[in-house]
Amino acid sequence: MSKAEVYAQVLEQATALFDGQRNWVHITNPLFYSNFSNAAALLWHAYHSLPAPSSAVNWSGFYFTDPSNPRQLILGPFQGQVACQAIAFGRGVCGAAAETKVTQLVEDVDKFPGHIACDGASKSEVVVPIVKDGKTVAIIDVDCAELNGFNDEDQVALEELARLLAESCDF
Amino acid sequence: MSKAEVYAQVLEQATALFDGQRNWVHITNPLFYSNFSNAAALLWHAYHSLPAPSSAVNWSGFYFTDPSNPRQLILGPFQGQVACQAIAFGRGVCGAAAETKVTQLVEDVDKFPGHIACDGASKSEVVVPIVKDGKTVAIIDVDCAELNGFNDEDQVALEELARLLAESCDF
Repeated sequence: MSKAEVYAQVLEQATALFDGQRNWVHITNPLFYSNFSNAAALLWHAYHSLPAPSSAVNWSGFYFTDPSNPRQLILGPFQGQVACQAIAFGRGVCGAAAETKVTQLVEDVDKFPGHIACDGASKSEVVVPIVKDGKTVAIIDVDCAELNGFNDEDQVALEELARLLAESCDF
Repeated sequence: MSKAEVYAQVLEQATALFDGQRNWVHITNPLFYSNFSNAAALLWHAYHSLPAPSSAVNWSGFYFTDPSNPRQLILGPFQGQVACQAIAFGRGVCGAAAETKVTQLVEDVDKFPGHIACDGASKSEVVVPIVKDGKTVAIIDVDCAELNGFNDEDQVALEELARLLAESCDF
């Protein structure tokens, strides 16, 4: 399958996964997290069904804005190596996306000011903010062990996933 | 490294990971989940550093007892394929461990009555209940794509991890 087909499948599966679960609020119901646990798995296996560089994705998952500190991201469900549990808004690639509400498509993470190297194997990264009512409520974070792991096609599809997540989950 | 060494490392890393985080309650603070997201990653990479059958582990993660329904397990963080979001106590291998509070070491899942096949590739499974104040608060679930993927050594180490999780996290 092509990248476009794989992403279309991810969006279709994610839509089905979240159907009827929009009223589950994460503060009171862990099923909110189940959605994201499965979404991280969908992304991981989608990348690994594609040729390089997508197959070299080594981390896919989510950070949530901390309800008790709106300037901090908190590690959510993911697939990949153990990761930082808290990231301040503005810090590294994830913090930049959260702060600016703009997707960060980074060809070479070592050239990104303040990059946080949770896993030294990561060479490139894409981080898409999930924005609701003008606020960053979460981010989608995907790392790749190759340089230039992501392009416009990844950005467009992940931004669509971010919109789906913003619409289908009550943050 | 041997299985014993790898498990010792997992326990040491998990202890460090959870240090000082015991008062984070999952209902009000998502950092509770961060612990389990990273613990699922620790387990996954531990198995994949070992020879077969451990290297054939195809799912490692957690289910939590649903605070709003104490007879239901809810999908938590994991590594592996997309999984069932809710499992009733008593249903399948996970439900049996939750119901009986006894580890289920299953050499061949197809012979286990009522086995839930989230991933057809899974051939064997070990499920360890995390018990606090006499109640199952969560389970550790690990699947393997080979028959007889787990033995007493896995059971002993995972039961130690379950005790650590019960002690270091306020469910």
